[in-house]
Amino acid sequence: MKKKAVVLLSGGLDSSTALYWAKAKGYHCEGLSIFYGQRHARELLSAQALAKKAKVKIHQIKLDLPWLKISSLNDRTKKLPNLPLTQIGRGEIPSTYVPGRNTVFLSLALSLADATQAQAIVIGANALDYSGYPDCRPNYLNAFERMANLGTKNGSMGRPIKILSPLLHLDKEQIVRLAFKLKVPLELTWSCYAGEKNPCGKCDSCKLRAKGFLLAKASDPALKI
Amino acid sequence: MKKKAVVLLSGGLDSSTALYWAKAKGYHCEGLSIFYGQRHARELLSAQALAKKAKVKIHQIKLDLPWLKISSLNDRTKKLPNLPLTQIGRGEIPSTYVPGRNTVFLSLALSLADATQAQAIVIGANALDYSGYPDCRPNYLNAFERMANLGTKNGSMGRPIKILSPLLHLDKEQIVRLAFKLKVPLELTWSCYAGEKNPCGKCDSCKLRAKGFLLAKASDPALKI
Repeated sequence: MKKKAVVLLSGGLDSSTALYWAKAKGYHCEGLSIFYGQRHARELLSAQALAKKAKVKIHQIKLDLPWLKISSLNDRTKKLPNLPLTQIGRGEIPSTYVPGRNTVFLSLALSLADATQAQAIVIGANALDYSGYPDCRPNYLNAFERMANLGTKNGSMGRPIKILSPLLHLDKEQIVRLAFKLKVPLELTWSCYAGEKNPCGKCDSCKLRAKGFLLAKASDPALKI
Repeated sequence: MKKKAVVLLSGGLDSSTALYWAKAKGYHCEGLSIFYGQRHARELLSAQALAKKAKVKIHQIKLDLPWLKISSLNDRTKKLPNLPLTQIGRGEIPSTYVPGRNTVFLSLALSLADATQAQAIVIGANALDYSGYPDCRPNYLNAFERMANLGTKNGSMGRPIKILSPLLHLDKEQIVRLAFKLKVPLELTWSCYAGEKNPCGKCDSCKLRAKGFLLAKASDPALKI
Protein backbone atom coordinates (compact mmCIF):
# COMPACT_ATOMS: atom_id res chain seq x y z
CA MET A 1 0.00 0.00 0.00
CA LYS A 2 1.16 3.51 -0.82
CA LYS A 3 2.42 5.63 2.09
CA LYS A 4 0.16 8.56 2.90
CA ALA A 5 1.08 12.17 3.59
CA VAL A 6 -0.80 15.31 4.55
CA VAL A 7 0.79 18.29 2.78
CA LEU A 8 0.37 21.82 4.10
CA LEU A 9 -0.33 23.69 0.89
CA SER A 10 -0.50 27.46 1.03
CA GLY A 11 -0.20 27.90 -2.71
CA GLY A 12 3.25 29.50 -2.59
CA LEU A 13 6.52 28.42 -4.16
CA ASP A 14 7.74 26.47 -1.15
CA SER A 15 4.63 24.47 -0.27
CA SER A 16 3.99 23.63 -3.93
CA THR A 17 7.53 22.34 -4.29
CA ALA A 18 7.05 20.34 -1.08
CA LEU A 19 3.90 18.78 -2.56
CA TYR A 20 5.64 17.73 -5.75
CA TRP A 21 8.58 16.43 -3.70
CA ALA A 22 6.22 14.23 -1.66
CA LYS A 23 4.55 12.92 -4.80
CA ALA A 24 7.97 12.13 -6.30
CA LYS A 25 8.84 10.25 -3.11
CA GLY A 26 5.84 8.01 -3.70
CA TYR A 27 3.43 9.42 -1.11
CA HIS A 28 -0.30 9.45 -1.69
CA CYS A 29 -0.92 13.08 -0.74
CA GLU A 30 -3.81 15.07 0.64
CA GLY A 31 -3.44 18.84 0.73
CA LEU A 32 -4.51 21.07 3.59
CA SER A 33 -4.79 24.82 3.26
CA ILE A 34 -6.09 27.28 5.76
CA PHE A 35 -7.80 30.62 5.60
CA TYR A 36 -6.87 32.53 8.75
CA GLY A 37 -7.67 36.06 7.66
CA GLN A 38 -4.46 36.55 5.68
CA ARG A 39 -4.50 39.61 3.41
CA HIS A 40 -3.26 37.41 0.59
CA ALA A 41 -6.16 34.99 0.82
CA ARG A 42 -5.85 34.71 -2.94
CA GLU A 43 -3.02 32.24 -2.28
CA LEU A 44 -5.80 29.77 -1.47
CA LEU A 45 -7.02 29.92 -5.07
CA SER A 46 -3.49 29.00 -6.09
CA ALA A 47 -3.54 26.12 -3.61
CA GLN A 48 -6.77 24.87 -5.13
CA ALA A 49 -5.46 25.13 -8.69
CA LEU A 50 -2.22 23.39 -7.70
CA ALA A 51 -4.07 20.53 -5.99
CA LYS A 52 -6.24 20.08 -9.07
CA LYS A 53 -3.21 20.05 -11.36
CA ALA A 54 -1.38 17.60 -9.07
CA LYS A 55 -4.54 15.46 -8.79
CA VAL A 56 -4.60 15.50 -5.00
CA LYS A 57 -7.57 15.98 -2.71
CA ILE A 58 -7.49 19.28 -0.86
CA HIS A 59 -9.10 20.28 2.43
CA GLN A 60 -9.64 24.00 2.89
CA ILE A 61 -10.28 25.04 6.48
CA LYS A 62 -11.51 28.42 7.65
CA LEU A 63 -10.37 29.82 10.98
CA ASP A 64 -11.78 32.94 12.54
CA LEU A 65 -9.21 34.00 15.17
CA PRO A 66 -9.75 37.71 15.85
CA TRP A 67 -6.50 38.08 17.82
CA LEU A 68 -4.45 37.49 14.67
CA LYS A 69 -5.19 41.09 13.62
CA ILE A 70 -2.05 41.88 15.59
CA SER A 71 -0.07 40.75 12.51
CA SER A 72 0.45 43.02 9.51
CA LEU A 73 -0.30 39.95 7.41
CA ASN A 74 -3.82 39.89 8.83
CA ASP A 75 -4.63 43.57 8.87
CA ARG A 76 -4.70 45.54 5.63
CA THR A 77 -4.52 48.83 7.53
CA LYS A 78 -1.01 47.91 8.72
CA LYS A 79 2.05 48.55 6.57
CA LEU A 80 4.02 45.55 5.36
CA PRO A 81 7.78 45.65 6.03
CA ASN A 82 9.95 46.72 3.09
CA LEU A 83 13.47 45.67 4.07
CA PRO A 84 16.55 45.44 1.88
CA LEU A 85 17.01 41.81 0.79
CA THR A 86 20.18 41.37 2.83
CA GLN A 87 18.35 42.26 6.04
CA ILE A 88 15.34 39.95 5.64
CA GLY A 89 15.29 37.30 8.38
CA ARG A 90 18.40 38.74 10.02
CA GLY A 91 16.95 41.10 12.61
CA GLU A 92 13.88 41.08 14.83
CA ILE A 93 10.88 38.89 14.11
CA PRO A 94 8.95 41.03 11.57
CA SER A 95 5.40 42.41 11.87
CA THR A 96 4.20 39.78 9.39
CA TYR A 97 4.70 37.12 12.09
CA VAL A 98 1.38 35.40 12.82
CA PRO A 99 1.27 34.12 16.42
CA GLY A 100 1.52 30.33 16.54
CA ARG A 101 0.68 29.94 12.85
CA ASN A 102 2.69 26.85 12.00
CA THR A 103 1.71 25.22 15.30
CA VAL A 104 -1.96 25.69 14.45
CA PHE A 105 -1.40 24.52 10.85
CA LEU A 106 0.65 21.49 11.88
CA SER A 107 -1.91 20.60 14.55
CA LEU A 108 -4.72 20.55 12.04
CA ALA A 109 -2.53 18.48 9.72
CA LEU A 110 -1.76 16.17 12.64
CA SER A 111 -5.43 15.69 13.38
CA LEU A 112 -6.05 14.78 9.72
CA ALA A 113 -2.98 12.51 9.62
CA ASP A 114 -4.05 10.69 12.79
CA ALA A 115 -7.62 10.28 11.51
CA THR A 116 -6.49 8.92 8.12
CA GLN A 117 -3.47 6.95 9.38
CA ALA A 118 -1.04 8.98 7.29
CA GLN A 119 2.64 8.38 7.99
CA ALA A 120 3.83 11.89 7.30
CA ILE A 121 3.05 15.58 7.37
CA VAL A 122 4.91 17.62 4.76
CA ILE A 123 5.64 21.30 5.32
CA GLY A 124 7.57 23.68 3.06
CA ALA A 125 9.30 25.44 5.94
CA ASN A 126 12.63 26.98 5.15
CA ALA A 127 15.20 28.27 7.60
CA LEU A 128 17.73 29.85 5.24
CA ASP A 129 16.07 32.39 2.94
CA TYR A 130 13.10 33.15 5.19
CA SER A 131 11.49 35.95 7.17
CA GLY A 132 12.96 34.84 10.50
CA TYR A 133 9.85 33.27 12.00
CA PRO A 134 10.64 30.99 14.98
CA ASP A 135 8.14 28.38 13.79
CA CYS A 136 10.22 27.59 10.69
CA ARG A 137 13.36 26.44 12.51
CA PRO A 138 14.69 22.87 12.74
CA ASN A 139 14.58 22.53 16.54
CA TYR A 140 10.95 23.70 16.58
CA LEU A 141 9.94 21.17 13.92
CA ASN A 142 11.76 18.37 15.77
CA ALA A 143 9.98 19.32 18.99
CA PHE A 144 6.63 19.32 17.18
CA GLU A 145 7.25 15.82 15.86
CA ARG A 146 8.12 14.54 19.32
CA MET A 147 4.97 16.07 20.82
CA ALA A 148 2.87 14.77 17.93
CA ASN A 149 3.88 11.19 18.52
CA LEU A 150 3.14 11.33 22.23
CA GLY A 151 -0.28 12.93 21.79
CA THR A 152 -1.92 10.92 19.01
CA LYS A 153 -3.48 7.48 18.82
CA ASN A 154 -1.24 6.33 15.97
CA GLY A 155 1.91 7.94 17.32
CA SER A 156 1.43 6.56 20.82
CA MET A 157 0.73 3.07 19.46
CA GLY A 158 3.96 2.69 17.51
CA ARG A 159 2.76 4.05 14.17
CA PRO A 160 4.79 7.27 14.10
CA ILE A 161 3.82 10.36 12.14
CA LYS A 162 6.87 12.07 10.67
CA ILE A 163 7.16 15.81 10.06
CA LEU A 164 8.97 16.14 6.73
CA SER A 165 10.39 19.51 5.74
CA PRO A 166 12.35 18.82 2.55
CA LEU A 167 13.20 22.50 1.94
CA LEU A 168 14.41 23.30 5.45
CA HIS A 169 18.09 23.61 4.59
CA LEU A 170 17.79 24.77 0.98
CA ASP A 171 18.26 28.37 -0.09
CA LYS A 172 15.81 29.98 -2.53
CA GLU A 173 18.00 29.29 -5.52
CA GLN A 174 18.05 25.59 -4.66
CA ILE A 175 14.28 25.60 -4.10
CA VAL A 176 13.66 27.17 -7.52
CA ARG A 177 15.97 24.62 -9.16
CA LEU A 178 14.19 21.78 -7.35
CA ALA A 179 10.79 23.16 -8.40
CA PHE A 180 11.84 23.16 -12.06
CA LYS A 181 13.28 19.66 -11.72
CA LEU A 182 10.01 18.39 -10.20
CA LYS A 183 7.94 20.18 -12.86
CA VAL A 184 5.97 22.23 -10.34
CA PRO A 185 3.45 24.35 -12.26
CA LEU A 186 5.07 27.53 -11.02
CA GLU A 187 2.72 29.74 -13.03
CA LEU A 188 -0.03 28.73 -10.61
CA THR A 189 1.83 29.64 -7.40
CA TRP A 190 1.35 32.81 -5.35
CA SER A 191 3.88 34.13 -2.83
CA CYS A 192 3.21 37.87 -2.42
CA TYR A 193 2.08 38.96 1.05
CA ALA A 194 0.21 42.01 -0.26
CA GLY A 195 -2.36 39.96 -2.13
CA GLU A 196 -3.14 42.56 -4.77
CA LYS A 197 -3.78 41.77 -8.43
CA ASN A 198 -0.08 41.38 -9.18
CA PRO A 199 2.87 40.57 -6.87
CA CYS A 200 4.10 43.77 -5.16
CA GLY A 201 7.81 43.05 -5.57
CA LYS A 202 8.55 44.76 -2.26
CA CYS A 203 7.50 42.39 0.53
CA ASP A 204 9.88 39.82 2.07
CA SER A 205 8.18 37.04 0.21
CA CYS A 206 8.43 38.72 -3.24
CA LYS A 207 12.06 39.66 -2.67
CA LEU A 208 13.15 36.20 -1.53
CA ARG A 209 11.32 34.62 -4.44
CA ALA A 210 12.88 37.01 -6.96
CA LYS A 211 16.32 36.29 -5.50
CA GLY A 212 15.74 32.56 -6.02
CA PHE A 213 14.82 32.94 -9.69
CA LEU A 214 17.65 35.41 -10.32
CA LEU A 215 20.31 33.12 -8.85
CA ALA A 216 18.83 30.08 -10.60
CA LYS A 217 19.04 32.13 -13.83
CA ALA A 218 15.38 31.51 -14.65
CA SER A 219 12.41 33.75 -15.19
CA ASP A 220 9.42 33.43 -12.90
CA PRO A 221 6.46 31.95 -14.79
CA ALA A 222 4.04 33.58 -12.32
CA LEU A 223 5.09 37.08 -13.35
CA LYS A 224 3.03 38.34 -16.23
CA ILE A 225 5.26 41.35 -16.87
CA MET B 1 0.83 43.88 36.50
CA LYS B 2 -1.30 40.76 36.85
CA LYS B 3 -0.04 37.60 35.16
CA LYS B 4 -2.21 36.49 32.24
CA ALA B 5 -3.50 33.04 31.38
CA VAL B 6 -5.52 31.53 28.56
CA VAL B 7 -7.80 28.84 29.98
CA LEU B 8 -9.19 26.06 27.80
CA LEU B 9 -12.78 25.98 28.96
CA SER B 10 -15.00 23.18 27.68
CA GLY B 11 -17.68 23.75 30.29
CA GLY B 12 -17.07 20.47 32.11
CA LEU B 13 -16.11 19.78 35.71
CA ASP B 14 -12.37 19.68 35.05
CA SER B 15 -11.92 22.77 32.90
CA SER B 16 -14.18 24.82 35.18
CA THR B 17 -12.14 23.79 38.19
CA ALA B 18 -8.98 24.66 36.29
CA LEU B 19 -10.41 28.13 35.55
CA TYR B 20 -11.20 28.80 39.21
CA TRP B 21 -7.78 27.46 40.19
CA ALA B 22 -6.10 29.92 37.83
CA LYS B 23 -8.18 32.79 39.20
CA ALA B 24 -7.26 31.79 42.75
CA LYS B 25 -3.59 31.78 41.73
CA GLY B 26 -3.94 35.40 40.71
CA TYR B 27 -4.05 35.05 36.93
CA HIS B 28 -6.05 37.41 34.78
CA CYS B 29 -7.84 34.79 32.69
CA GLU B 30 -9.33 34.61 29.21
CA GLY B 31 -11.35 31.52 28.33
CA LEU B 32 -11.17 29.67 25.04
CA SER B 33 -13.75 27.11 24.00
CA ILE B 34 -14.05 25.30 20.73
CA PHE B 35 -16.87 23.85 18.72
CA TYR B 36 -15.46 20.98 16.69
CA GLY B 37 -18.67 19.11 15.88
CA GLN B 38 -18.93 17.39 19.26
CA ARG B 39 -22.31 15.74 19.91
CA HIS B 40 -22.38 17.46 23.28
CA ALA B 41 -22.03 20.96 21.84
CA ARG B 42 -24.30 22.04 24.67
CA GLU B 43 -21.16 22.04 26.85
CA LEU B 44 -20.34 25.32 25.10
CA LEU B 45 -23.39 26.95 26.66
CA SER B 46 -22.03 25.85 30.02
CA ALA B 47 -18.65 27.32 29.13
CA GLN B 48 -20.34 30.62 28.30
CA ALA B 49 -22.34 30.66 31.52
CA LEU B 50 -19.25 29.77 33.56
CA ALA B 51 -17.19 32.52 31.97
CA LYS B 52 -19.93 35.03 32.68
CA LYS B 53 -20.17 33.90 36.29
CA ALA B 54 -16.39 34.03 36.70
CA LYS B 55 -16.28 37.40 34.96
CA VAL B 56 -13.75 36.36 32.34
CA LYS B 57 -13.75 37.10 28.64
CA ILE B 58 -14.39 34.05 26.51
CA HIS B 59 -13.46 33.32 22.90
CA GLN B 60 -15.59 30.71 21.18
CA ILE B 61 -14.03 29.29 18.01
CA LYS B 62 -15.77 27.14 15.43
CA LEU B 63 -13.84 24.46 13.56
CA ASP B 64 -15.24 22.50 10.67
CA LEU B 65 -12.98 19.45 10.35
CA PRO B 66 -14.95 16.77 8.46
CA TRP B 67 -12.44 14.00 9.23
CA LEU B 68 -13.36 14.12 12.94
CA LYS B 69 -16.53 12.16 12.13
CA ILE B 70 -14.31 9.14 12.72
CA SER B 71 -14.90 9.69 16.45
CA SER B 72 -18.07 8.51 18.19
CA LEU B 73 -17.99 11.87 19.97
CA ASN B 74 -18.50 13.61 16.63
CA ASP B 75 -21.02 11.30 15.01
CA ARG B 76 -24.42 10.77 16.59
CA THR B 77 -25.01 7.66 14.50
CA LYS B 78 -22.15 5.92 16.35
CA LYS B 79 -22.69 4.24 19.71
CA LEU B 80 -20.88 5.68 22.72
CA PRO B 81 -18.88 3.18 24.80
CA ASN B 82 -20.58 1.91 27.96
CA LEU B 83 -17.79 0.34 30.00
CA PRO B 84 -17.82 -0.69 33.64
CA LEU B 85 -16.22 2.07 35.73
CA THR B 86 -13.20 -0.05 36.61
CA GLN B 87 -12.32 -0.56 32.95
CA ILE B 88 -12.51 3.08 31.84
CA GLY B 89 -9.10 4.31 30.70
CA ARG B 90 -7.51 0.93 31.32
CA GLY B 91 -7.78 -0.72 27.89
CA GLU B 92 -7.56 0.50 24.31
CA ILE B 93 -8.03 4.12 23.37
CA PRO B 94 -11.85 4.38 23.17
CA SER B 95 -13.98 5.37 20.16
CA THR B 96 -14.62 8.78 21.75
CA TYR B 97 -10.99 9.71 21.03
CA VAL B 98 -10.89 12.76 18.76
CA PRO B 99 -7.71 12.77 16.61
CA GLY B 100 -5.28 15.43 17.78
CA ARG B 101 -7.91 17.28 19.81
CA ASN B 102 -5.80 18.63 22.62
CA THR B 103 -3.01 19.51 20.20
CA VAL B 104 -5.43 21.59 18.13
CA PHE B 105 -6.94 23.16 21.27
CA LEU B 106 -3.57 23.92 22.84
CA SER B 107 -2.31 25.34 19.53
CA LEU B 108 -5.20 27.77 19.33
CA ALA B 109 -4.61 28.69 22.99
CA LEU B 110 -0.92 29.14 22.20
CA SER B 111 -1.70 31.49 19.33
CA LEU B 112 -3.90 33.57 21.63
CA ALA B 113 -1.32 33.48 24.44
CA ASP B 114 1.47 34.59 22.10
CA ALA B 115 -0.69 37.38 20.64
CA THR B 116 -1.69 38.69 24.07
CA GLN B 117 1.62 38.03 25.86
CA ALA B 118 0.02 35.65 28.34
CA GLN B 119 2.43 33.73 30.55
CA ALA B 120 0.38 30.56 30.82
CA ILE B 121 -2.11 28.24 29.19
CA VAL B 122 -4.29 26.33 31.65
CA ILE B 123 -5.80 22.97 30.73
CA GLY B 124 -7.92 20.70 32.91
CA ALA B 125 -6.27 17.52 31.64
CA ASN B 126 -6.29 14.60 34.00
CA ALA B 127 -4.31 11.38 33.74
CA LEU B 128 -5.76 9.38 36.62
CA ASP B 129 -9.56 9.11 36.30
CA TYR B 130 -9.76 9.64 32.55
CA SER B 131 -10.76 7.93 29.31
CA GLY B 132 -7.19 6.97 28.41
CA TYR B 133 -6.56 9.56 25.71
CA PRO B 134 -2.84 9.96 24.87
CA ASP B 135 -3.17 13.76 24.71
CA CYS B 136 -3.92 13.99 28.44
CA ARG B 137 -0.65 12.48 29.68
CA PRO B 138 2.20 14.31 31.43
CA ASN B 139 4.93 13.53 28.89
CA TYR B 140 2.72 14.81 26.07
CA LEU B 141 1.99 18.07 27.89
CA ASN B 142 5.69 18.57 28.67
CA ALA B 143 6.55 18.00 25.02
CA PHE B 144 3.89 20.51 23.96
CA GLU B 145 5.34 23.15 26.27
CA ARG B 146 8.82 22.61 24.89
CA MET B 147 7.60 22.90 21.29
CA ALA B 148 5.50 25.95 22.17
CA ASN B 149 8.46 27.88 23.48
CA LEU B 150 10.59 27.16 20.44
CA GLY B 151 7.87 28.11 17.96
CA THR B 152 6.47 31.38 19.28
CA LYS B 153 7.72 34.95 19.32
CA ASN B 154 7.42 35.29 23.09
CA GLY B 155 8.73 31.82 23.87
CA SER B 156 11.73 32.17 21.59
CA MET B 157 12.58 35.58 23.03
CA GLY B 158 12.86 34.51 26.65
CA ARG B 159 9.26 35.16 27.70
CA PRO B 160 8.16 31.55 28.20
CA ILE B 161 4.58 30.36 27.99
CA LYS B 162 3.86 27.66 30.56
CA ILE B 163 1.34 24.86 30.11
CA LEU B 164 -0.35 24.47 33.50
CA SER B 165 -2.42 21.37 34.19
CA PRO B 166 -3.35 21.65 37.87
CA LEU B 167 -5.58 18.53 37.82
CA LEU B 168 -3.15 16.22 36.06
CA HIS B 169 -2.34 14.05 39.06
CA LEU B 170 -5.61 14.37 40.98
CA ASP B 171 -8.29 11.70 40.99
CA LYS B 172 -11.95 12.63 40.49
CA GLU B 173 -12.63 12.71 44.22
CA GLN B 174 -9.85 15.21 44.70
CA ILE B 175 -11.08 17.28 41.74
CA VAL B 176 -14.60 17.44 43.19
CA ARG B 177 -13.22 18.45 46.59
CA LEU B 178 -11.07 21.12 44.96
CA ALA B 179 -14.05 22.41 42.96
CA PHE B 180 -16.09 22.85 46.16
CA LYS B 181 -13.15 24.51 47.89
CA LEU B 182 -12.76 26.97 45.00
CA LYS B 183 -16.53 27.61 44.89
CA VAL B 184 -16.87 26.53 41.26
CA PRO B 185 -20.53 26.98 40.23
CA LEU B 186 -20.86 23.26 39.58
CA GLU B 187 -24.55 23.57 38.73
CA LEU B 188 -23.48 25.27 35.49
CA THR B 189 -21.05 22.57 34.33
CA TRP B 190 -21.73 19.90 31.73
CA SER B 191 -19.72 16.67 31.39
CA CYS B 192 -21.95 14.15 29.59
CA TYR B 193 -20.73 13.02 26.17
CA ALA B 194 -24.22 12.18 24.92
CA GLY B 195 -25.38 15.78 25.01
CA GLU B 196 -29.07 15.05 25.53
CA LYS B 197 -31.36 17.07 27.77
CA ASN B 198 -30.05 15.40 30.92
CA PRO B 199 -26.74 13.59 31.59
CA CYS B 200 -26.97 9.96 30.37
CA GLY B 201 -25.22 8.43 33.38
CA LYS B 202 -23.67 5.74 31.17
CA CYS B 203 -20.81 7.35 29.23
CA ASP B 204 -17.22 7.44 30.55
CA SER B 205 -17.57 11.06 31.45
CA CYS B 206 -20.78 10.65 33.46
CA LYS B 207 -19.42 7.61 35.29
CA LEU B 208 -16.12 9.23 36.23
CA ARG B 209 -17.94 12.35 37.41
CA ALA B 210 -20.41 10.34 39.50
CA LYS B 211 -17.51 8.43 41.07
CA GLY B 212 -15.91 11.71 42.09
CA PHE B 213 -19.02 13.03 43.82
CA LEU B 214 -19.70 9.68 45.46
CA LEU B 215 -16.22 9.40 46.96
CA ALA B 216 -16.23 13.05 47.98
CA LYS B 217 -19.54 12.34 49.74
CA ALA B 218 -21.31 15.18 47.96
CA SER B 219 -24.28 15.43 45.66
CA ASP B 220 -23.80 16.78 42.16
CA PRO B 221 -25.46 20.21 41.83
CA ALA B 222 -25.79 19.69 38.06
CA LEU B 223 -28.13 16.73 38.48
CA LYS B 224 -31.71 17.85 38.68
CA ILE B 225 -32.96 14.42 39.80
